[in-house]
Amino acid sequence: MASGSLVSFLNIPEDSHFSMQNLPYGVFRPTPEQQPRPGVAIGEYVLDLSALARAGLFHGPVLKGSDCFLQPSLNAFMAMGKPAWKEARGTIQKLLSVDEPALRDNAELQKSALLPMSQVQLMLPAVIGDYTDFFTSKYHTMNCGIIFRGPESPLPPNWLHLPVAYHGRASSVVISGTDLHRPRGQKRPVGKPTPGFGPSAKLDFELEMAMLVGPGNELGTSVSVDDAADHIFGLVLMNDWSARDIQAWEYQPLGPFLGKSFGTTVSPWIVTLEALQPFTCEAPVQDPPPLPYLTGKSCRTYDIPLEVALKPAGEDKSSVVCKSNFKHLYWTIEQQLAHHTINGCNLRPGDLLGSGTISGPEPESFGSLLELSWDGKNPLKLGNNISRTFVEDGDEVILTACCQGDGYKVGFGTCSGKILPAIS
Amino acid sequence: MASGSLVSFLNIPEDSHFSMQNLPYGVFRPTPEQQPRPGVAIGEYVLDLSALARAGLFHGPVLKGSDCFLQPSLNAFMAMGKPAWKEARGTIQKLLSVDEPALRDNAELQKSALLPMSQVQLMLPAVIGDYTDFFTSKYHTMNCGIIFRGPESPLPPNWLHLPVAYHGRASSVVISGTDLHRPRGQKRPVGKPTPGFGPSAKLDFELEMAMLVGPGNELGTSVSVDDAADHIFGLVLMNDWSARDIQAWEYQPLGPFLGKSFGTTVSPWIVTLEALQPFTCEAPVQDPPPLPYLTGKSCRTYDIPLEVALKPAGEDKSSVVCKSNFKHLYWTIEQQLAHHTINGCNLRPGDLLGSGTISGPEPESFGSLLELSWDGKNPLKLGNNISRTFVEDGDEVILTACCQGDGYKVGFGTCSGKILPAIS
Ligand SMILES: [Ca+2]
Ligand SMILES: [Ca+2]
Ligand SMILES: [Mg+2]
Ligand SMILES: [Mg+2]
Ligand code: NI
Repeated sequence: MASGSLVSFLNIPEDSHFSMQNLPYGVFRPTPEQQPRPGVAIGEYVLDLSALARAGLFHGPVLKGSDCFLQPSLNAFMAMGKPAWKEARGTIQKLLSVDEPALRDNAELQKSALLPMSQVQLMLPAVIGDYTDFFTSKYHTMNCGIIFRGPESPLPPNWLHLPVAYHGRASSVVISGTDLHRPRGQKRPVGKPTPGFGPSAKLDFELEMAMLVGPGNELGTSVSVDDAADHIFGLVLMNDWSARDIQAWEYQPLGPFLGKSFGTTVSPWIVTLEALQPFTCEAPVQDPPPLPYLTGKSCRTYDIPLEVALKPAGEDKSSVVCKSNFKHLYWTIEQQLAHHTINGCNLRPGDLLGSGTISGPEPESFGSLLELSWDGKNPLKLGNNISRTFVEDGDEVILTACCQGDGYKVGFGTCSGKILPAIS
Repeated sequence: MASGSLVSFLNIPEDSHFSMQNLPYGVFRPTPEQQPRPGVAIGEYVLDLSALARAGLFHGPVLKGSDCFLQPSLNAFMAMGKPAWKEARGTIQKLLSVDEPALRDNAELQKSALLPMSQVQLMLPAVIGDYTDFFTSKYHTMNCGIIFRGPESPLPPNWLHLPVAYHGRASSVVISGTDLHRPRGQKRPVGKPTPGFGPSAKLDFELEMAMLVGPGNELGTSVSVDDAADHIFGLVLMNDWSARDIQAWEYQPLGPFLGKSFGTTVSPWIVTLEALQPFTCEAPVQDPPPLPYLTGKSCRTYDIPLEVALKPAGEDKSSVVCKSNFKHLYWTIEQQLAHHTINGCNLRPGDLLGSGTISGPEPESFGSLLELSWDGKNPLKLGNNISRTFVEDGDEVILTACCQGDGYKVGFGTCSGKILPAIS
């Protein structure tokens, strides 16, 4: 099936993140009573893939007869791999194009399959079996090293040799728009010999992107760096909320735990690597050169401009507090995935692999308040006489990402969350 | 329903781990073609709970009409909580008792519901949404501190104030009897400036027990230490396989990752807290006293003798390398669960919470080869002129645990795994 014209019969606003070139996948339900189902974002609509599948419109060789779009999550479609993804994209692009009558001229199908995005409930797009968080921005790593451990050798000895990562908590990954309570926990104020207990006083965001795994690998096998892209379904925005005071007290020697596990917010729309293809760019030079298992034939990444805005309670407007870019990351997503499996660890479709905080070289590109306020020493001025060192109750944090193509955008929408007061 | 006589119509060998007082839950399939289903271990048999449920034998107020035993995992039963667990135990104990004709005198039902354990395939008892590993033996923590960081202050500053833990990898948790390949990875030999790559040369076991979560808690809520036991379904044995060379190089600053995620083995039978009730004992005195959220009305643990045996390839007999006890742990399982949720982190039924390596005070009670061979400096003599510093290819590691009651045992069976050579 040819992919057809990239002009849609729908009116897609020029500044929409969800162009014909994008077609990101998500899961939604039209009403709270209905079953969750896969969909694609197009302009201001959600295209219901279960409705198209029921109408028999996926009739290519790979998807014909498949129930992957009749599932309440995208895991089955993710597991099918690139041939299925390519065929689905072609079919959807054609069905939405101005030249194709099947959906354009079928008012009844449009009514059931094209729903205003503002009226549906967006949900987690996948059942996340495991969530891993990497630590792949050199700028973020060095900033954290200086803040937590001092200016001597802020980069850990292993950092330039492997993409450092830790296991995160899968149960508390939530969809954009979910309010979260400020966590309580143990923390030890500087200079005090014993810890106290209470709501976190250093609640932070972390600007991240995360990949969702497509086909997995069997336990005991590894995915090579050159094959890794075939195992990546796409990317989302992610806010790895972090309670710095809880984290600082608990994380030695086994890493972050309760300072992170109270909630991690992801954006609803998974932008595929195919949609991101026009926005590839050279990855940073890696010196020293990595070991062979981390050395691919090419070493490319994506130019994805990122922004974080903070909207205090009661304010009409949000203030941009960070402008960064995905291309600042030192390790590529292919290297991350290859490293994750080199010991035989099995990945499963739908697994979430976060990039780590995406800080760039300039102070305004730092991807967390820890860095932006330098652990609270330099409060950020937000306008309207408001300033912030860390996140306060009622604050909403909004991440966005958008690639600018030639006359179109490939965007991620937003990843937002509001912090409610701690429960006492 | 009364629980009936604790004498069964079945012949239960006196040294069986699976007495009428035990009745641990697992999941099995009679043949590889059949669906997995819940069962209970009794003597040398597995009692098929789906067969009993289909025969209408769970007719108490909680379980009547429930499909919890028609599921391929125990998660639904775990989620139902103590009233369901108590009712099921009473029903099963009665059905197996010598005084009760329903199963005793029904040859056809016996044929379908009582299967020789040696002939069925035991499987993971639950879908594990998240796996957490604690670090609650003071002896293990101090041994690791001395080996990895030197004899000065081997206990991290936070250790006596909270049960330290990290997130583990859920996808690679496997059932006892699953062979695992030796992992490959990066490691940096002592004194070398740069890392190398290859199979782990310091492959180790960790003797642990793990709880499986019953009813979970909603994101944003916490479980108090006094309520925690109601959220714990039971315990299994766990071998947290660890590649010490990979771990040592990667774990700073974010904790263990590939040094652990290649495999974690659990025993198939979940022994309930009710079955363990006769084996409670005082927990160690905690000094300094923990914060109020970790201070329960009582502070009890379980006296569970533990053993690790190693069986080299080609040898007929295994050698016991460690004798320890669950009661050596400093933090109780109730404290672990309360701490895990104090920040609002949601637990789900079937979550796996490992205790950490269970080392006792005596050298022969150390729960890992890292400690037993003191990082390879003191090879263990196994007899037959065989010695070990770490696990070698072909070695099988077998964990066992068994409580001795008055004329009966409440045991965990075994948790075993064999190491195959690395894949090249
Ligand atoms: Ca992070
Ligand atoms: Ca462990
Ligand atoms: Mg988080
Ligand atoms: Mg492990
Ligand atoms: Ni194999």
